[in-house]
Amino acid sequence: MQHTLVSPQLVDETLRRAAIDNMDNASIRDIVKVTNLLEKASGLPYVRMEMGVPGLAPNRIGTDAEIAALQKGVAQFYPMLEGLPELAAETSRFIRNFIDVGIAPEHILPTVGAMQASYVSFMALTEYKEGEDTVLFIDPGFPVQKTQMEVIGKPYITFDIYEYRGRKLREKLESYLKKGNICAIVYSNPNNPSWVCLTEEELQIIGELATRYDIVALEDLAYFAMDFRRDLSHPGKAPFQPSVARYTDNYILMISSSKLFSYAGQRLGLLCVSDALFNRKYPHLKARYNSEELGYTLAYKLIYTQTSGTSHSPQYAVAAILKAANEGKLDILQDAREYGKRAGSMKELFRKAGFAIVYDKDGEEEIGDGFYFTIGYPGMSGGELARELLHYGISSLPLKGCGSTREGLRACVSQIGQDKIELLKERLARFRQDHP
Amino acid sequence: MQHTLVSPQLVDETLRRAAIDNMDNASIRDIVKVTNLLEKASGLPYVRMEMGVPGLAPNRIGTDAEIAALQKGVAQFYPMLEGLPELAAETSRFIRNFIDVGIAPEHILPTVGAMQASYVSFMALTEYKEGEDTVLFIDPGFPVQKTQMEVIGKPYITFDIYEYRGRKLREKLESYLKKGNICAIVYSNPNNPSWVCLTEEELQIIGELATRYDIVALEDLAYFAMDFRRDLSHPGKAPFQPSVARYTDNYILMISSSKLFSYAGQRLGLLCVSDALFNRKYPHLKARYNSEELGYTLAYKLIYTQTSGTSHSPQYAVAAILKAANEGKLDILQDAREYGKRAGSMKELFRKAGFAIVYDKDGEEEIGDGFYFTIGYPGMSGGELARELLHYGISSLPLKGCGSTREGLRACVSQIGQDKIELLKERLARFRQDHP
Repeated sequence: MQHTLVSPQLVDETLRRAAIDNMDNASIRDIVKVTNLLEKASGLPYVRMEMGVPGLAPNRIGTDAEIAALQKGVAQFYPMLEGLPELAAETSRFIRNFIDVGIAPEHILPTVGAMQASYVSFMALTEYKEGEDTVLFIDPGFPVQKTQMEVIGKPYITFDIYEYRGRKLREKLESYLKKGNICAIVYSNPNNPSWVCLTEEELQIIGELATRYDIVALEDLAYFAMDFRRDLSHPGKAPFQPSVARYTDNYILMISSSKLFSYAGQRLGLLCVSDALFNRKYPHLKARYNSEELGYTLAYKLIYTQTSGTSHSPQYAVAAILKAANEGKLDILQDAREYGKRAGSMKELFRKAGFAIVYDKDGEEEIGDGFYFTIGYPGMSGGELARELLHYGISSLPLKGCGSTREGLRACVSQIGQDKIELLKERLARFRQDHP
Repeated sequence: MQHTLVSPQLVDETLRRAAIDNMDNASIRDIVKVTNLLEKASGLPYVRMEMGVPGLAPNRIGTDAEIAALQKGVAQFYPMLEGLPELAAETSRFIRNFIDVGIAPEHILPTVGAMQASYVSFMALTEYKEGEDTVLFIDPGFPVQKTQMEVIGKPYITFDIYEYRGRKLREKLESYLKKGNICAIVYSNPNNPSWVCLTEEELQIIGELATRYDIVALEDLAYFAMDFRRDLSHPGKAPFQPSVARYTDNYILMISSSKLFSYAGQRLGLLCVSDALFNRKYPHLKARYNSEELGYTLAYKLIYTQTSGTSHSPQYAVAAILKAANEGKLDILQDAREYGKRAGSMKELFRKAGFAIVYDKDGEEEIGDGFYFTIGYPGMSGGELARELLHYGISSLPLKGCGSTREGLRACVSQIGQDKIELLKERLARFRQDHP
């Protein structure tokens, strides 16, 4: 007797309707769509682990500041491309307080989400030196960044970090860099989808190579400070958010307000260019965009022509949040720690049901509990497992589409409140009965 | 004796500092910068006509709705790429009420300002058919749209409409279209910078040719309904905002909330794709962006990868404004009519001081009073005139940089409140005394 909650016929038919043959090839949005259809047809609310949307209320300091700004009438005025001066100033202080490195306020640009930060960075970095137009991704990673490269029309190369942790990373990176066509190394830390957190040794390797080959390390800090194994929440006090910025001057940091402050809706990202790079002149940027300096090109050629800056009132919101964080009046992890707790409970349930954590270690250390974790089941590919779990009311994302070479799934904890944990337990028990 | 208010030495030195040799080649932002420097050094507040920023308070219905949305917590949630359903629905009604054409809500996409609307349109339209990658601009026009083309890396052609009004437009357009490399015709109506409003005859010509050559008319309605010669403010009642949409199915409209509703700061534009085009499939889009349908490409490949949509709360603001307009509870021109009054007063002062209106007619009709007007002075080029006026505390934009073949300036009325009119009068009197 099978213990499925949704009939195989319905799952098959729904996947067919969405033109999904193998779930390894489905995009996040495809899977969201399939899950919506399955919920509607079956009447069963799913345990939804497929998409990384913030699951907590937005930071109140932010909405209060934004409402005050609207009441003052800021909706009338174009924001400056350099952003609100307070926002740049507080971001600069934030970077000093929580990463312990220095970036001048004038080298920080607000963007329409970290999405625009990476888009314009790719446009600039693939054009700054003739012949160096290829981006190297340390995978697994956020699939949309590769779609950005495709839309821009520039080449990229990726490899899965799984086999190249620690000092093995140096040789692997150099095997690409010595070819001379790489313009930038991109990675997220903590990592989406695997929740790998690069060790100081690994960040040092990346930094040293960025300097040696004179290329840029583009560091995606979308999950800033959310490695809960250390308490990174105290301004001006170690431990700090690890960053390549400590090991090279050739870096750009991308900070997001979406996950840490649950402010995804207002699309406010921060593009933080190192002091050494911002005013650096590149003849090929001049040839391509008629603008020689990297920072000026990002602000006045790329952000300006794409969106003419980013909405005005959200800049007040994020400035107020960062100010409170800098002054120690806001614990930046106050809300986000909830994600770590959920991950801990969920991982335990999965392990008990016979699953294994795919990306399980950072160096010698057990991987942290955070916004995502990865799971595999013996004898099943990621695509097969994702499909199978749909029968038990659980949705997830195969790792293949994120550039992973491992078989397994990404699970996002954000939509799994404590009330869903019990549901997950029951459903995994059913799965386990059918897959002994 | 000279009657200048700012010394020639200071003007020369400031222009040199800004690396401006000839003002005909200066960008809007260059001139803003020069004027800021001159104000600071001379202590004289300028009559600032160089930049098209909204000069009125933001629409209150908008800010109230936006504040209510923030209080509900929308800052947490990613907006859908298709936009808030109410926003799309009200925009569709608005287009029916004020243009008298039909576009289904699902073919309307919110963008980060009309800036993003044109950027993504250029990216899609220059790739939709092999060999048709050149955009044709009916000039004069907004200079940044050409910078967008340069950033995207695609060719464009322009001509000045001045000599080709009325039925002469057909032959001129066909001389380009028959070469087969044009993908789209772009123009603004009312026109920035000249305030030319295309006649129904001209719009019909553009529409017929867009159909005949199967290309897209991309109509920039940034100054929607602001041709004050007719009262276009009554929902569902003629006269309507003129549009190419009445003459072809091959159109895309771009609507802005910046000028009409003084909502520039929140960056909310509307990209309205005709029902005939939205789901149309183009094999070359598939080859280039891996997405065959025009509308899907715009939303899921271009807007998604660039910004992942546009800020959430401003969508509530504009939806509420459009709803009030549709229900006849808001006179859409209530605030904007002020611009027409200012233009009337200012043009009279300039005429009395010996200036002439450069773009002076639409067909047989005198040009309207609106957000911009154009002026020339006998015996002086646009660059010379702009420079000369700086000595009298007046800043403006030469027409050359807007693709005009005429000598003269664009004057924007937005920052010239009634208190500044008297100042302008005195300063023009000084100019007149020195240039008899």
